Amino acid sequence: MEKLNKHKRHQYSKMVVDTLKNEKINEFRHTFLDLHPSDQLDIFISLNQDARAKVYSYLSPEEFANVFSGLDIREQKLYFLELAEEYSSTMFNYMFTDNVVTFLAEINTERADAILANMDKDKARHVKRLLSYAEETAGSIMTKELIRISSTEKVSNVLERLREEAPTAEIIYYLYVTNVNQELVGVVSLRDLIVASPEETIENIMSKKVISVEEDLDQEDVGHTIKKYDFLAVPVVSKENHLLGIITVDDIMDILEEEATEDFEELSATKGSTDIDLSGYETAKMRGPWIIALMFLGMLTAGVIGYFEETLEAVVLLSVFIPLIMDSAGNVGTQSLTVAVRGLALGNIKQGGFWRMIKRELTAGFLLGLVCMVSITVLISVIYGNWILAVIVGVSLLCTLTVSTVVGFIVPLIINKLKFDPAIASGPFITTVNDILGLVIYFSIATALMHLL
Amino acid sequence: MEKLNKHKRHQYSKMVVDTLKNEKINEFRHTFLDLHPSDQLDIFISLNQDARAKVYSYLSPEEFANVFSGLDIREQKLYFLELAEEYSSTMFNYMFTDNVVTFLAEINTERADAILANMDKDKARHVKRLLSYAEETAGSIMTKELIRISSTEKVSNVLERLREEAPTAEIIYYLYVTNVNQELVGVVSLRDLIVASPEETIENIMSKKVISVEEDLDQEDVGHTIKKYDFLAVPVVSKENHLLGIITVDDIMDILEEEATEDFEELSATKGSTDIDLSGYETAKMRGPWIIALMFLGMLTAGVIGYFEETLEAVVLLSVFIPLIMDSAGNVGTQSLTVAVRGLALGNIKQGGFWRMIKRELTAGFLLGLVCMVSITVLISVIYGNWILAVIVGVSLLCTLTVSTVVGFIVPLIINKLKFDPAIASGPFITTVNDILGLVIYFSIATALMHLL
Repeated sequence: MEKLNKHKRHQYSKMVVDTLKNEKINEFRHTFLDLHPSDQLDIFISLNQDARAKVYSYLSPEEFANVFSGLDIREQKLYFLELAEEYSSTMFNYMFTDNVVTFLAEINTERADAILANMDKDKARHVKRLLSYAEETAGSIMTKELIRISSTEKVSNVLERLREEAPTAEIIYYLYVTNVNQELVGVVSLRDLIVASPEETIENIMSKKVISVEEDLDQEDVGHTIKKYDFLAVPVVSKENHLLGIITVDDIMDILEEEATEDFEELSATKGSTDIDLSGYETAKMRGPWIIALMFLGMLTAGVIGYFEETLEAVVLLSVFIPLIMDSAGNVGTQSLTVAVRGLALGNIKQGGFWRMIKRELTAGFLLGLVCMVSITVLISVIYGNWILAVIVGVSLLCTLTVSTVVGFIVPLIINKLKFDPAIASGPFITTVNDILGLVIYFSIATALMHLL
Repeated sequence: MEKLNKHKRHQYSKMVVDTLKNEKINEFRHTFLDLHPSDQLDIFISLNQDARAKVYSYLSPEEFANVFSGLDIREQKLYFLELAEEYSSTMFNYMFTDNVVTFLAEINTERADAILANMDKDKARHVKRLLSYAEETAGSIMTKELIRISSTEKVSNVLERLREEAPTAEIIYYLYVTNVNQELVGVVSLRDLIVASPEETIENIMSKKVISVEEDLDQEDVGHTIKKYDFLAVPVVSKENHLLGIITVDDIMDILEEEATEDFEELSATKGSTDIDLSGYETAKMRGPWIIALMFLGMLTAGVIGYFEETLEAVVLLSVFIPLIMDSAGNVGTQSLTVAVRGLALGNIKQGGFWRMIKRELTAGFLLGLVCMVSITVLISVIYGNWILAVIVGVSLLCTLTVSTVVGFIVPLIINKLKFDPAIASGPFITTVNDILGLVIYFSIATALMHLL
């Protein structure tokens, strides 16, 4: 068995490089084309420009189409420019529509039009239709290469047709059944087809309860549908229930991961900078705007403290507990934010439960506040021997935690409802808001009770 | 077409409840069994105890096995206790091995043994073997229901066998080929099988480069393998390359989501409390320990400020910028932490790149610090008219941001390398550490330069 572990891959990689160096076309083709596409990619990426140029001439556009499809969009852009115009047009004809769309959507429209003009007419029309869908909808990520069968066909007939069409369809484990009006009326799995008698008509073995998604559904919801039903693919239909395309589970896994990364970036204000390959300078450039914006926002906290300077001058000891109040507010806020963001991502937050959830967070925040109040009051009394100060800090904590918990949970939900950019609800932003609230509460209570100190 | 949108599902749900109420066995069976498993689940969960009892008696253990397999482990535990002992034993016989294992792993060992004793001998043996695997390894999540074929079989013969075996195997889109020693030697997709001539031998159409995972591989790495190769399933082998079982893409999607949730919980110290259905009290109980532990840790920040009380009494204005220093340190730390956690999850952090990455974060932190230093120095000079104070805050920011960026990135990597519980590196913890570092830097610089103020 030739399983490609690290050692084997290294060995194959060396073989490929050697055959390219010595210009042994046939040996290169034999070694390279026999590898799993994913291993082909790993090796291709490791080549230098000279070696890549040889790959382009040793592989037909059709063969290279597979390699190109597997590349990241960033790599695609780099290598695309190394390809001759005719070679690349032919290559695009052999790529799955969704992969062509992903590439064209990322480059200048004029250039995209030029590429489309050189492509096969039919293919170009499909690509154009997909390009017109709004980003991140089912329509924009579906593929059009699917096998359509009719409910009146015989099993043997369909199997025969599969032998011809299978190589060009992206997935053939589900076959979608349409009627004369191109409406989706059923689904047959390849498994059903094999188990059935060859003489049976599709109508009798197909499942009529097809779960489909509409073309304008958000890609994240498509992901939930596929996950919920444990599907390998889901059909995409128009408002009139016309079968338009399919979305496969491997695309969905990439999308769910992308969405999770977006959520992580939202929690930590790292938009776009979780890529591990960026240089220190690039990282700083991407994270910088957030840090600077938050720093200016942080000047507000300075303003709050400045406003209470008199109180602070009278009792300098108050400043000792500023971090404690801020950290606690920030911590509960971040917890609530995470629960909200994760709940939205997993589709757990049900409609109509809005007020119930506010109540839940309010209860949780109040209970957390109570426990913290009691423990910190005792602790400060003992350590600093000042029970009035202890009560001030304790009561402030109770109020702050209650408010911060609710703020951390509610803000992302509201932003989500109003369809604003959720990045506004990033973790550090909510933390800063909670800091300000916490400090106002703390110093207000301290100022009110100062005469007792 | 009968697609189950919200309206339809509600309608079916009503039908099911009605048939149960009126004890119309046949109508219930007809409606319920015709639904997609996922919709069956939604409806089953919404039933009350009386209705559920009827479901158990109207459905055979075999039929109910499907419903039970789809339930969350929490729900399984609740409903399991409503089942008669014999009914449940039969049901377990009809469930896929991996699903039985998931349930038994969660209950008391004695009880699990009792259930195993009542099960089919062969099945029980499989389950026991799987139960013995360490949690979260490939072996513990694989299923043993797979179709093995031999390299000498004919295509027509395999297709014939599929007709019989397909209903009991969890996935038949890949068929794994073993030799006489039970070693994995190849793989054939159902697609290859259909496209091939019936008279062909498997040997000639199988791919010999099988990608497999070893039984003790971590489940997250299994996920990366399936994602990388866009597989629908991956075979699990022993050290001797014996085929043991398969892991399918739908199980992997659940696992990747679980791992993402764990990472979110790590970033925000919400371990186990992202479940949206918990009550306010339960939430507080789960989040509480973190908040209280962090609060006590936060007393250290109070200690730091207390240590510099003299400096603070001399220049009360210094306290105004405590939040700014803390927030900035916390923000860059959280950013770096997210990049590290996400990089580890996606497997992007390559071996040997450790020092390169430290250098990268150091550069990024220093550059961020420089920009912040310049802008805050100008801003404070203008607003507070005190350029020495401005320089103190500016220089402190430069040092703090540089250190915090590195700390936020390095700590999770070290913890990961040492195989400690990564929860130690939770976001709030690192933020608190960075707060303390930031305050020490700030007040040290301020104390040193105080005579200039």
